[in-house]
Amino acid sequence: MQEKKLLPKKSKDISKWYLALIEQAKLADYGPAKGTMIIRPYGYAIWENVVAAMDAEFKKSGAVNAYFPLFIPNSLFVKEKEHVEGFAPETAVVTYGGGEKLKDPLVVRPTSEMIMYEAYARWISSWRDLPMVINQWNNVVRWEKRTYPFLRTSEFLWQEGHGAHATRQENWERVLWGIETYAKIYRDFFAIDGLVGRKSESEKFAGADTTLTFELITPDGKALQSCTSHDLGQNFSKTLDISFQDKDGKNQFVWQNSWGFSTRSIGALVLVHGDDNGLILPPKLAPIKVAIVPVLGKKDEEVLKYCEKIKESLGFAEIFADSEKSFGFRINEVEIKGIPVRLEIGTREMQEKTATVGFRFPGMEKKLVRFTELPEKIDEFLVQVQDKMLENSKKFLADNIREAKTFDEFKEIMKTKRGFIKAFWCEDPKCEASIKEETKASTRLKLLDAKREKGVCIYCGRKAEYIWYFGQAY
Amino acid sequence: MQEKKLLPKKSKDISKWYLALIEQAKLADYGPAKGTMIIRPYGYAIWENVVAAMDAEFKKSGAVNAYFPLFIPNSLFVKEKEHVEGFAPETAVVTYGGGEKLKDPLVVRPTSEMIMYEAYARWISSWRDLPMVINQWNNVVRWEKRTYPFLRTSEFLWQEGHGAHATRQENWERVLWGIETYAKIYRDFFAIDGLVGRKSESEKFAGADTTLTFELITPDGKALQSCTSHDLGQNFSKTLDISFQDKDGKNQFVWQNSWGFSTRSIGALVLVHGDDNGLILPPKLAPIKVAIVPVLGKKDEEVLKYCEKIKESLGFAEIFADSEKSFGFRINEVEIKGIPVRLEIGTREMQEKTATVGFRFPGMEKKLVRFTELPEKIDEFLVQVQDKMLENSKKFLADNIREAKTFDEFKEIMKTKRGFIKAFWCEDPKCEASIKEETKASTRLKLLDAKREKGVCIYCGRKAEYIWYFGQAY
Repeated sequence: MQEKKLLPKKSKDISKWYLALIEQAKLADYGPAKGTMIIRPYGYAIWENVVAAMDAEFKKSGAVNAYFPLFIPNSLFVKEKEHVEGFAPETAVVTYGGGEKLKDPLVVRPTSEMIMYEAYARWISSWRDLPMVINQWNNVVRWEKRTYPFLRTSEFLWQEGHGAHATRQENWERVLWGIETYAKIYRDFFAIDGLVGRKSESEKFAGADTTLTFELITPDGKALQSCTSHDLGQNFSKTLDISFQDKDGKNQFVWQNSWGFSTRSIGALVLVHGDDNGLILPPKLAPIKVAIVPVLGKKDEEVLKYCEKIKESLGFAEIFADSEKSFGFRINEVEIKGIPVRLEIGTREMQEKTATVGFRFPGMEKKLVRFTELPEKIDEFLVQVQDKMLENSKKFLADNIREAKTFDEFKEIMKTKRGFIKAFWCEDPKCEASIKEETKASTRLKLLDAKREKGVCIYCGRKAEYIWYFGQAY
Repeated sequence: MQEKKLLPKKSKDISKWYLALIEQAKLADYGPAKGTMIIRPYGYAIWENVVAAMDAEFKKSGAVNAYFPLFIPNSLFVKEKEHVEGFAPETAVVTYGGGEKLKDPLVVRPTSEMIMYEAYARWISSWRDLPMVINQWNNVVRWEKRTYPFLRTSEFLWQEGHGAHATRQENWERVLWGIETYAKIYRDFFAIDGLVGRKSESEKFAGADTTLTFELITPDGKALQSCTSHDLGQNFSKTLDISFQDKDGKNQFVWQNSWGFSTRSIGALVLVHGDDNGLILPPKLAPIKVAIVPVLGKKDEEVLKYCEKIKESLGFAEIFADSEKSFGFRINEVEIKGIPVRLEIGTREMQEKTATVGFRFPGMEKKLVRFTELPEKIDEFLVQVQDKMLENSKKFLADNIREAKTFDEFKEIMKTKRGFIKAFWCEDPKCEASIKEETKASTRLKLLDAKREKGVCIYCGRKAEYIWYFGQAY
């Protein structure tokens, strides 16, 4: 008999719980180089489901996929000043290739703006070439010394979409489309609600005019920037001379955007939904949606045959029948893996042609379902679970948005509850820095539809026109 | 009106033709770093079709996908002696990370044996953990100074599958499965026939006991190694201590295999099937299977409406109706892109509710098909085209296998026709090297079911037991 490994309690030490769960559910492991991570098959299968959902949305929107090189010559990388200042400190640099020292070292892409736009400049010459919206599914490297699986790793997988447009307006619509698509995927597939908004000047992407973000609150009350969509304006097009002849024969610089969604999202998924017994996966992303767990003992063969029949009638499901493992151990395995629905099958179920249906999501009662009704019922259950998980997340988000009228209130919330704090801010970076220093809370976002109001800055008391959302960054 | 670019003749200068076609069909472009390539959307869409076909085969076989780090610490990379000797000269090495010089430089993976097996050693302890068959879709780097799009690039995309097994026999079955799966994909999807066989000792993978290969003949008579499957024996498991307790409680080293298929295959696809008018894509890999090309002039709107109706009834197809381009120019575009089937639609077709169906593959006559019969007929045509392309390739392969009884004959074939030459070889690496030096032909493979015969080496005249296939490497 294999022994059950103990999982630390999520409520007691969320960080220990997270690391132990990543290991026990076999989602990821550490690579031998500092900061690197192995995405194990079970974790990768979740990512494959994310990719499939997202790729379909991209293609529906007219974006096409392509692949650009991993290596950016340093001489090209340094051309956009703000961009390089933001990224240079976290790059990995190749200085030797084919046994020779390179004259122009190669930066391993931390993001692909420069390498893609160098080509855009060659490919775009007329309004007929626009819009050009190209997406890549690839790996990028941003140096980290301490790995925190999925959430902070030197190398991660993501997609990066890059649009070039003829007008500022059309460009802005693609920026909005980006963040709205991500929010939709987070809500409909991850069953995670969050806020969409604009980053402050100091928190935006290096090289962008505006960065839009989707941020969620983790169970320990921190704010997680979960994906971003950038309005790059004409910053890169002017630097790299990406211009086109418009319909009137005039030469113009293109307007650009970029948007990225990474494996960090898997970390969010684990953190947000998991509990003391393991992962809780939303059906739409679960690699295994239904587990069939036979009670082994007498009449094993007949019970197993019945399990196979159920599996066949469903068309998907996995049987957990390793006779070396006790029923309890196997239930534990199904729970730690976060499989949304499990069918417990003993001699009674076999004889009565039924299945006892249990749920991973807490608070849902077991149900006895007839064999003939299983396929239809299971489909219904999976939809119910997905909906309940999102409802739960919506409630959590709503419960974790608090308003602060005074800085004392602000500090009190940060000390006790955290989450998002709504407060007026004058938009002076000095106040932003002081608030962060004193409370650990940084500006997270300003809602897209934020209304101009008459208020005073939570920190300095000067005039402030907008309410911002603050929180402690994960 | 845009001008038609001239494509060099394939028969006159295949290399110029290839490079011009890659550019004009927008399959790929050059990256700014030496040896690197951009896979443009049209080329990447072909690769996506390859990935979908292959990934389904892998999953059916029980392999699972995962992702391992890009960076291999040099101290780990050098552990397997033969492996490092083979790959070290072509690596790219990261020596700076996060602004600091690294104590242990990082090798950018040229292949992932070392980084994966370091984890296998930790994950495998019992026979219950076996077989472990993990595949990755990723990018690898093998230093090249001169780019030849798809066929020779520093960075390329591929999949690498890595199996660990309890027995030598089971391991060998996976090695065979690998090359047979590749051959099936080449034949059924690429419509390219080739030979499957064993590489010689000097040509095998660095670290393998045996390498199996699938090789095809290019139109200029060269042999292209198109993918490989390796029997790694216990070479890596002994170096990295990947061992397991078998059912009897005894400790054993695992048996391993690896198999890879890369974007090089897109180069083969272009080379093998293309002609003086552009690409010719097999329907199963074509990103656009059917082009609808309206004759514009009078009654444009009605004709276009009819084209939309056809597109709708097919469920797939792309309309080429840019009024800035002449009918001939658009036909040329459809041809250069290698779209298998095109529907030419003028007022006559619109009035009679028909479509004139033309084919990209030479020698197939145009057909007039009624609107109501189009979906069914198009499906049939696509199958026919796919079959004809494979037939064509089979014939070409058969026509390009020649037997040489004497070294003079061998030299004569190499001077005039090339292709595969069958000849007895004593398996002495010295003869192999001399043959290559004098004729440019290297050993390509020995058929899997090659029979032991009594012969004499084509070069030295000593005893030789097997017929080998020779050819000039691409």
